[in-house]
Amino acid sequence: MSEPLFDTVCFVGIGHIGSSLALALRKHGLARRLVALEAAPEHRRIAVEIGVVDEATDDPAKAVPGAGLVVIAVPVGAVESVGQAIAPHLAPGTIVTDVGSVKMAVIRDLAPSIPDGVHYVPGHPIAGTEHSGPRSGFAELFQGRWQILTPLPGTDAHAVATLTELWTRVGSMVEVMDPHHHDKVLAITSHLPHLIAYTIVGTASDLEAHLAQEVIKFSASGFRDFTRIAASDPIMWRDIFINNREAVLEVIQRFTEDLTALQRAIRWGEGEVLEKRFTETRAIRRAIIDAKQA
Amino acid sequence: MSEPLFDTVCFVGIGHIGSSLALALRKHGLARRLVALEAAPEHRRIAVEIGVVDEATDDPAKAVPGAGLVVIAVPVGAVESVGQAIAPHLAPGTIVTDVGSVKMAVIRDLAPSIPDGVHYVPGHPIAGTEHSGPRSGFAELFQGRWQILTPLPGTDAHAVATLTELWTRVGSMVEVMDPHHHDKVLAITSHLPHLIAYTIVGTASDLEAHLAQEVIKFSASGFRDFTRIAASDPIMWRDIFINNREAVLEVIQRFTEDLTALQRAIRWGEGEVLEKRFTETRAIRRAIIDAKQA
Repeated sequence: MSEPLFDTVCFVGIGHIGSSLALALRKHGLARRLVALEAAPEHRRIAVEIGVVDEATDDPAKAVPGAGLVVIAVPVGAVESVGQAIAPHLAPGTIVTDVGSVKMAVIRDLAPSIPDGVHYVPGHPIAGTEHSGPRSGFAELFQGRWQILTPLPGTDAHAVATLTELWTRVGSMVEVMDPHHHDKVLAITSHLPHLIAYTIVGTASDLEAHLAQEVIKFSASGFRDFTRIAASDPIMWRDIFINNREAVLEVIQRFTEDLTALQRAIRWGEGEVLEKRFTETRAIRRAIIDAKQA
Repeated sequence: MSEPLFDTVCFVGIGHIGSSLALALRKHGLARRLVALEAAPEHRRIAVEIGVVDEATDDPAKAVPGAGLVVIAVPVGAVESVGQAIAPHLAPGTIVTDVGSVKMAVIRDLAPSIPDGVHYVPGHPIAGTEHSGPRSGFAELFQGRWQILTPLPGTDAHAVATLTELWTRVGSMVEVMDPHHHDKVLAITSHLPHLIAYTIVGTASDLEAHLAQEVIKFSASGFRDFTRIAASDPIMWRDIFINNREAVLEVIQRFTEDLTALQRAIRWGEGEVLEKRFTETRAIRRAIIDAKQA
């Protein structure tokens, strides 16, 4: 157990990511007291009952003052109103971070509310499962995963260093990145895969009932891997797509072109086109295994 | 250990599926002797060395005679020439089955070679990983998974019953299905997911080099699940798409329409369309978990 980095940490939203980070901070002794500001009574009750946080409230005036770190872990579309609600209670010197999967829109919606003297450092842990809610949190979620920080020009270097230490101590590797670049990279690595998974599972669920039953029965042949991704939180993902529109539309366009090319090769029986493409994709898998992200 | 179902079983092709079934037959004592007919010298050497089969050869005249069961486990595109090669050596009463992911084309290519008195029962185990070759086989691969049999009109009922017993004893549940219907169901549950995975990984591998590096680094956010599927054997999948063309093109069309609808919702900021769709897809995941295929 090492020296705590913070006396009190306040989580705004205690869902999958919030509760996982709370448990990780506890496990590594990084905070003395954990508080949740959470709108859903059920989540507040569970989070306290299972010991994710010491205290949970829906009143910013009770949750925010006294916290040295405020972690905003709500769907991206809720960040603006959260920022307005907590702003009056943020004391100078407080560090505010968020865990949103989109960074440009979150900065646009949150930064204007942050008072002078409060250090806002946008962040995004590249970790998570398809589960949601405080019961789904676990302390090891961030172990061996990347944490991206996208500090704004002029952000206090000490605040960035403190967050870097916090994420490092819960097991993550930290990368500092431009927020615009973040949104472009994540559109490919995360937003497009989720959209595709939602689409294919949706396509299957539109089938006639007896065929849909068989799709479920024989899902082990590839389909089920998509259903896991497509079981992710609908509100969270609605907000991500709406708030990273341009980058997502750009990668959908590339994807559609590539799919059309393969579709054409299938129609015309061009086996060599398919084989070449399917061989190239193996190299990426090997690189991911080598990078220990498999 | 129960009574063997066969004295000798011959595997034509000793890759991932062939070697897994060989190991399963051995584990459950379902055959006394296992032989591989395999074109690749390296696969023959490995399969004997690690004890997957007792003997391996590239000569049908040595491998096939004496086998009560012949299991054809080669890429779908190789089935026709395999059928012609083994046909002269098949004795009356022998059961021939295959494990191809496409059934109409395999029946078209294989059935004409099968001599009178030999019982051909097409099959498809809904199991497998992204790995290939005899080293990747394991006896538990079929445990709790479906085995589909698509017998032709007039097929010997005893042969179907024997194969049903064999698959049941290696842990599978057996489903008898019309081959045309099989190809339609698998186009959705397996062929489309693989094509989509190959496409998205291909889209990423076309990115400028520095961006591709970041895609690998941050792949844990959804992308890596696709890369596992897109690491599957290129020849096997080339053959599947070419040989299930009509059903695959039909589901690509449905998928593209659905993707276009979501794309449009993103462009116009129609959050309620996205949320509705993303909520529907969760039900399919729950059904798969309930069906114990997750």
